[in-house]
Amino acid sequence: MDHRQPESDYVDGGGDIENDGRGSDASSFTEAREPLLNLKSRINTTSQIAIVGAKVYPIESLDYEMIENDLFKQDWRSRKRVQIFQYIFLKWTLALLIGLCTGLVGFLNNMAVENIAGYKLVITSDLMFNDKYLPAFAAFAGTNVILAICAGALCAYIAPAAAGSGIPEVKAYLNGIDAHSILAPSTLFVKIFGSILGVSAGLVVGKEGPMVHTGACIANLLGQGGSRKYRLTWKWLRYFKNDRDRRDLITCGAAAGVAAAFRAPVGGVLFALEEAASWWRSALLWRTFFTTAIVAVVLRSLINFCRGGNCGLFGQGGLIMFEMHSAIPNYTNADLLAVVLIGVLGGLLGSLYNFFVDKVLRAYTLVNERGPSYRVLLAAVITLLTSCFAFGLPWLAKCIPCPSGSEKECPTIGRSGNYKSFQCQPGHYNDLASLFLNTSDDAIRNLLSSTNRNEFEISSLIIFFAGTYFLGIVTYGIAIPSGLFIPVILAGATYGRLVGRLLGSLSTLDLGLFSVLGAASFLGGTMRMTVSLCVILLELTNNLLMLPLIMLVLLISKTVADSFNHGVYDQIVQMKGLPYLEAHAEPYMKHLAAGDVCSGPLITFSGVEKVGNIMHALETTGHNGFPVIDEPPFTDAPELCGLVLRSHLLVLLNQKKFTKNRAVCGGQVLRMYDAFDFAKPGLGKGLKVSDIDLTPEEMEMYVDLHPITNSSPYMVVETMSLAKAAILFRQLALRHLCVIPKTPGVRHPVVGILTRHDFMPEHVLGLYPELLHHK
Amino acid sequence: MDHRQPESDYVDGGGDIENDGRGSDASSFTEAREPLLNLKSRINTTSQIAIVGAKVYPIESLDYEMIENDLFKQDWRSRKRVQIFQYIFLKWTLALLIGLCTGLVGFLNNMAVENIAGYKLVITSDLMFNDKYLPAFAAFAGTNVILAICAGALCAYIAPAAAGSGIPEVKAYLNGIDAHSILAPSTLFVKIFGSILGVSAGLVVGKEGPMVHTGACIANLLGQGGSRKYRLTWKWLRYFKNDRDRRDLITCGAAAGVAAAFRAPVGGVLFALEEAASWWRSALLWRTFFTTAIVAVVLRSLINFCRGGNCGLFGQGGLIMFEMHSAIPNYTNADLLAVVLIGVLGGLLGSLYNFFVDKVLRAYTLVNERGPSYRVLLAAVITLLTSCFAFGLPWLAKCIPCPSGSEKECPTIGRSGNYKSFQCQPGHYNDLASLFLNTSDDAIRNLLSSTNRNEFEISSLIIFFAGTYFLGIVTYGIAIPSGLFIPVILAGATYGRLVGRLLGSLSTLDLGLFSVLGAASFLGGTMRMTVSLCVILLELTNNLLMLPLIMLVLLISKTVADSFNHGVYDQIVQMKGLPYLEAHAEPYMKHLAAGDVCSGPLITFSGVEKVGNIMHALETTGHNGFPVIDEPPFTDAPELCGLVLRSHLLVLLNQKKFTKNRAVCGGQVLRMYDAFDFAKPGLGKGLKVSDIDLTPEEMEMYVDLHPITNSSPYMVVETMSLAKAAILFRQLALRHLCVIPKTPGVRHPVVGILTRHDFMPEHVLGLYPELLHHK
Repeated sequence: MDHRQPESDYVDGGGDIENDGRGSDASSFTEAREPLLNLKSRINTTSQIAIVGAKVYPIESLDYEMIENDLFKQDWRSRKRVQIFQYIFLKWTLALLIGLCTGLVGFLNNMAVENIAGYKLVITSDLMFNDKYLPAFAAFAGTNVILAICAGALCAYIAPAAAGSGIPEVKAYLNGIDAHSILAPSTLFVKIFGSILGVSAGLVVGKEGPMVHTGACIANLLGQGGSRKYRLTWKWLRYFKNDRDRRDLITCGAAAGVAAAFRAPVGGVLFALEEAASWWRSALLWRTFFTTAIVAVVLRSLINFCRGGNCGLFGQGGLIMFEMHSAIPNYTNADLLAVVLIGVLGGLLGSLYNFFVDKVLRAYTLVNERGPSYRVLLAAVITLLTSCFAFGLPWLAKCIPCPSGSEKECPTIGRSGNYKSFQCQPGHYNDLASLFLNTSDDAIRNLLSSTNRNEFEISSLIIFFAGTYFLGIVTYGIAIPSGLFIPVILAGATYGRLVGRLLGSLSTLDLGLFSVLGAASFLGGTMRMTVSLCVILLELTNNLLMLPLIMLVLLISKTVADSFNHGVYDQIVQMKGLPYLEAHAEPYMKHLAAGDVCSGPLITFSGVEKVGNIMHALETTGHNGFPVIDEPPFTDAPELCGLVLRSHLLVLLNQKKFTKNRAVCGGQVLRMYDAFDFAKPGLGKGLKVSDIDLTPEEMEMYVDLHPITNSSPYMVVETMSLAKAAILFRQLALRHLCVIPKTPGVRHPVVGILTRHDFMPEHVLGLYPELLHHK
Repeated sequence: MDHRQPESDYVDGGGDIENDGRGSDASSFTEAREPLLNLKSRINTTSQIAIVGAKVYPIESLDYEMIENDLFKQDWRSRKRVQIFQYIFLKWTLALLIGLCTGLVGFLNNMAVENIAGYKLVITSDLMFNDKYLPAFAAFAGTNVILAICAGALCAYIAPAAAGSGIPEVKAYLNGIDAHSILAPSTLFVKIFGSILGVSAGLVVGKEGPMVHTGACIANLLGQGGSRKYRLTWKWLRYFKNDRDRRDLITCGAAAGVAAAFRAPVGGVLFALEEAASWWRSALLWRTFFTTAIVAVVLRSLINFCRGGNCGLFGQGGLIMFEMHSAIPNYTNADLLAVVLIGVLGGLLGSLYNFFVDKVLRAYTLVNERGPSYRVLLAAVITLLTSCFAFGLPWLAKCIPCPSGSEKECPTIGRSGNYKSFQCQPGHYNDLASLFLNTSDDAIRNLLSSTNRNEFEISSLIIFFAGTYFLGIVTYGIAIPSGLFIPVILAGATYGRLVGRLLGSLSTLDLGLFSVLGAASFLGGTMRMTVSLCVILLELTNNLLMLPLIMLVLLISKTVADSFNHGVYDQIVQMKGLPYLEAHAEPYMKHLAAGDVCSGPLITFSGVEKVGNIMHALETTGHNGFPVIDEPPFTDAPELCGLVLRSHLLVLLNQKKFTKNRAVCGGQVLRMYDAFDFAKPGLGKGLKVSDIDLTPEEMEMYVDLHPITNSSPYMVVETMSLAKAAILFRQLALRHLCVIPKTPGVRHPVVGILTRHDFMPEHVLGLYPELLHHK
């Protein structure tokens, strides 16, 4: 039987998926030259492609289902106790390794940034001190642009998937979407170095999102189940050749990334739980906790090592940790009102931020899709703009006399600190320069300081807020690894401090506390997380007494912002065309049956099928799952034998164990295959149709599909509501869901197959536009 | 068709489930007089009963499935947008109310304990000061025994389900098990007052577990969907008449309980997530977070109110919050070794604790099942023993001279504080009395203090450790609401301080820190939580710098203890015979098919069935779900129409809309019923078979089951492995799972029904004992 089955998810559009350790070659892809609108509409109707760096790539779903075919069942039965211990041992060893590597990378990233950006700022400030303003600007902007061009070139030419935050991609992967090379080794390489260069270039970008992506990439690399190319085919590693175990590792990696970026181990676990992961188990909680504990230990040891001055400029600034020692007074009702105000405004500004980020991202796609050189150019332009802002705006600020008693630290020349001299005469400082001409970490530290209430002028705070808000929006989307946490915290902390200054004596709260609350409100307004943000902020500021106020602000800002748009990561996932499965079903899905959306007939195989038929189906369709039907004379009536996966079919065909006659071979056929040959290889490493070379005689022969047919696919009856089927599909993390007829025996045993794509609102509403009114 | 269906879960064994607001009457139950062993074996083979206060009660599963019958579908379609807003508004209002009530109860609980226990201790210490030792003991022990008898009587006579911690019961409820009256209003009442009395009686019990149970009971009460009895039939509340929404509320309640007990809002959320809940959604994270934030606000306001001295003795001790201000030095490798040692020993002692608690619980069951009066007697005996320990052991300690410079606070007479005078002359204190003759909160606070390194003698610490370890074990299981957190923290903190003292100058760490680590190791060793315990401890001690060490200790102690036995709550759940569904399938389940465990034929109904047949099936079986089969002449071949629930059948029969002829009525029949009549009422409030009174003529009539038949039950094919079916069952929180034949059309459309009971290891291994070797 050969029919169209439009519901299957798309596989390789010509052997494109390539991330086999040698770095994916971006230029081998056909460029999508349609304008953005066309592109969007294509995405909306098919959902089979993802936009990575303005290119359109095929995506694939992951196999999380327990596949029960005869071969695998035999393998389970023969598995010995020692192998189970090996598996457990390896699981924890890998978690340990992920923690170690991510901690190390996080530390190196910080050290490199502190040193590169530090020396750049020292040189600039030395030149300024000697009144060489133009050379200072040239040095400052020149270094920045060169660093940004390097970062942009890495991104544009080597790994376009490394651009941006990376959190949306990790989130999508953990939802079961394997988009092009998002966790490839080349992406890891570019993410690490691109992030260092980009942050050092003074751009308003963070290193937190990239760290999450880096952690996930490290986990993916470790969970590849060895590599034949590099002869790393250790037997034990083979147990991890499946998507379920890889998913667990990558969740650990994401948690480790947050832990390394913020030195927040508990926050990392909660981030993985609340934002990153789509499926969660208690056992995983423990494992991620272990991983982040390792990260914390690694970071602590390395920082202790650096205390001796072994790490250059690192240690003066260093890993983010904004200790707040301010005592919290018993806040009054007026204070609570101020906190509510901050929450509401933060929610509004946060949702506005998301709105603009979305618009700018769409606009940049037009530039980015013109080619890698345009992408590098855009990055350079934005860097130049940022440099002009950073160097130009401080001229607007007045010179402020240093506060009495702080002669030692004011003004700071040639090192980090609160009080930057800039153009001012001795004994004075420029408060705007203290924010702009500093690393982001130091700027945040300055904003959160509570020693000097009048350290920053109101006008300076306004200028800095407007500057970072604007730069944060225009920077995200350029071809550089760019986190969103730091821009949001910067803008939020400034806004919080501004509110505190404006309220003046109306509130008794500390200005540093106002800054933290402002940052919390902005984070809540853009990212829409609650518990994890709360814990991350507590771990950053190391002050638990702020907990109730931070909770309040987060709840308010999230509520306010949620009434306008989605969280920024969800927005990016959607914009990239990744078919993300939500945890809940849309309300209108209650009005449809599962059978309503799987339109048209489908391709099925017989239990013993002709090789030529299989090859034809694999070549002409992109389907990844095919129902196998046992028919008379082998059975009394046609019955659903199960579901066979494309990847397994390819391995089967490649081994060429065919028979001349159409006959079921029975048990002895199992001995011909090794279950591990059918284990899922790492991303993009599997066989392709083009790899299989069959003679015309072989094409006429038969092959028994029973050993590799998953005999217990999940099934729903065609009358089940789409909402209920969606919950089943999502809860069990399925890739294929068979729809069977209400009346058995009379009709064909399978009505259709539902895949991720069929549950996408675009698809369903495309079929039934009238349901929009029910929405 | 009338066959045996042994797989269904048990329902009322004669109209027993009764918690309709008037307090369940324990004496109306038939007493189980078999010795414990028989009882256990019955539980193991049937899993249909639960032990509550040594009695055997029926249990019922909860309906979390989306039931799609024609009536409900019609109701969805007619539901308007405003009703959805009403629902959302109500959802958040209920979360708010749960937070408010739980916060208030938590505060009142604390205030009452502080005052009752406080005055008792003041009187005792005054008498001691005047050398009236015997009257002092009489007053002390007498008060304790009277308080314990009151608490025990409340528990034994009014609500046996209120005894113990309550966390295992909440955990079981959230896993889908509705055991007898575990969340009834009477249980709430007894839990609150029993806990106050029990803790005030100086027993080594905590108020944390009972607070979790209290929070869950409050949530359940608020989520009843109104009460006809009290005319609270507000229309909006009806949206909560289903088990799914109730489950969410009770999760919020459990989180609020922890938040109120420890003043740990984030810890409460994580506790609910890690320990209490079996199913979790991101949306729930936010809602529990909101609830615990409300609790934090309520507690803070009330404590502020008490600062003025409005609350008697409360405020000197007050809600647990052991602030630690000790600076953490840069710990050396020797310190790390000490920490590892604490973790390993804590894991060993913790698992030993679990072992003994289990043994003692089983022994107490023998006493408790003899009747309520024996239960009260046992409580009184244990209280007397505790009083003797508390009053007798301090005589073993030497009087220690007060440290210089602390004349003001040493010795303390007639108030709480570190240095108790007891029998000592002025200027001296008895360190053991400072621990024993104090509330548990104050004792913990003393143990965690880091001001005076030699405050407690090594011998005193050994005696106190042995005493609390022993008393903690023998106290759990008596008929009094008794939490496990405080006993474990007490013993753990003593043990930690002891290790610190013994190591002496080998370690540079603070003794208070040693105590915290000891408590962490014990908690990890008994309760086996990780992230939530970590956060709770951080929120309790308000010192984030201890994070890495606490993480390390928790990981080690949990790992060590897990190799010996299960966590204490899992152990109690198992001992109570509650059929708890684990998140993972047992390994041997891979070797069985779903069809293997659903033995024998089952009872099914026709689409239009004779009333008499239905009544007969309901009366003679305890099944809760019956497959409905449409047969010729209504269809071409027998087909599975769906599944009908006992509760819906009862409502249908009660309305008596029968027809004379066997005919499908079609659409107009829907107008005869109101969907809300079929909504699930609160626990134990539904109709029973005995409520239905039919005439012989009516018994001969027919009723159309189609409107109430869930037309899309979840189905698996009989050849699916039991492991895969178990995952499906657990992930989707099912109550019934239909098993269909591999070959459709030829055989009966349903092979059997799987319920929770069929996945229990006892049941499976009972059927296939040879699988034990595979285990």
